[in-house]
Amino acid sequence: MSQLIEPVARLIDALARLPGVGPKTAQRLTYHLLRAPDIEARALAAALIAVRDDVVYCERCFDFATGPLCLICSDPARDDSRLCVVEEPLDVLAIERTRAFRGRYHVLHGAISPVDGIGPERLRIRELIDRADARASVGSPIDEVVLATNPTLEGEATAMYIAERLAGRVGAISRIARGIPVGGDLEYADEVTLVRALQGRQLVEGAAER
Amino acid sequence: MSQLIEPVARLIDALARLPGVGPKTAQRLTYHLLRAPDIEARALAAALIAVRDDVVYCERCFDFATGPLCLICSDPARDDSRLCVVEEPLDVLAIERTRAFRGRYHVLHGAISPVDGIGPERLRIRELIDRADARASVGSPIDEVVLATNPTLEGEATAMYIAERLAGRVGAISRIARGIPVGGDLEYADEVTLVRALQGRQLVEGAAER
Repeated sequence: MSQLIEPVARLIDALARLPGVGPKTAQRLTYHLLRAPDIEARALAAALIAVRDDVVYCERCFDFATGPLCLICSDPARDDSRLCVVEEPLDVLAIERTRAFRGRYHVLHGAISPVDGIGPERLRIRELIDRADARASVGSPIDEVVLATNPTLEGEATAMYIAERLAGRVGAISRIARGIPVGGDLEYADEVTLVRALQGRQLVEGAAER
Repeated sequence: MSQLIEPVARLIDALARLPGVGPKTAQRLTYHLLRAPDIEARALAAALIAVRDDVVYCERCFDFATGPLCLICSDPARDDSRLCVVEEPLDVLAIERTRAFRGRYHVLHGAISPVDGIGPERLRIRELIDRADARASVGSPIDEVVLATNPTLEGEATAMYIAERLAGRVGAISRIARGIPVGGDLEYADEVTLVRALQGRQLVEGAAER
């Protein structure tokens, strides 16, 4: 690498630490930021500082929040009887975009992974159990917990562990379907996914009744 | 888009303004920065502010600098007799990486583009002529100006314009070669590049002497 003036080298270095940003992209972004309108560059710096200063975890679901409760937990219109368990805050966004779930969430902040030394105690599982018990203790147990951890080894293990812990504490426990993605190609699906797609097959409505 | 807390929405918005960063990437980067070590996120913000506060243009070549002159202009070991003209500061980095040029640079900050309303007066061409004249006036004219603007319509027009303006003011004026990229495939080269590659063909050393 050729010589660079210190502030430029420092910004390239800081940007290159971001996920998916290689040294070439970091360099391109730096040179863009050097010449962008002053207000644009400073707005980015200010926004960055603001998320660090003003964002905390929701006391109830552990999604990001600016007060004690996140936007979803403080929304009275959401369905209290259903709880969706996800690994990361980004997963909440993904499910929210579908508009197919109107219940509440619980963010674990990871998945059980013995290889990486992440046991259940490192995740927000204790708090999830407590949430279920608190609801049951006031006579309105959660009707359904949807386990929406990733369909990976870690996500499956986490779902299994949570299902065992929640058994008897909530009405029903479900797991999101695993199968061929919509628009996907059977021919290119891996074997494990295909097995899951077969196992999870559903009767075609109407056809069974004929 | 689902509801987002304001600081998060603001950072996603600021990141999505960066070139090559779409809304999905901006979201992923924001969630990374929310959970990154505090020092990492604040170092990025500080680096961003530092480039805006401390970086200026070199008085001589218009590359980025932290003082009156950039690192290359203030390096006494560089060859004063050769000057490479490029469109952008990033082009200086690209050429420096090759270690094939040891002269000085001149950064135009763009290329002539009538469509975008960019005429020669918007670029640092006046300053380039002045540099050439200043050298000539002290009896040591520049030996060679290498025109390394991009091989695009705008870059070629800019090179042509500068060549006309510099004629008689410097020893020689050259243009970087256009042709098939090393490792490229003739079959997939566009016609214009192929024509350039043929026009720019060079005698194979030794073969002519046999």
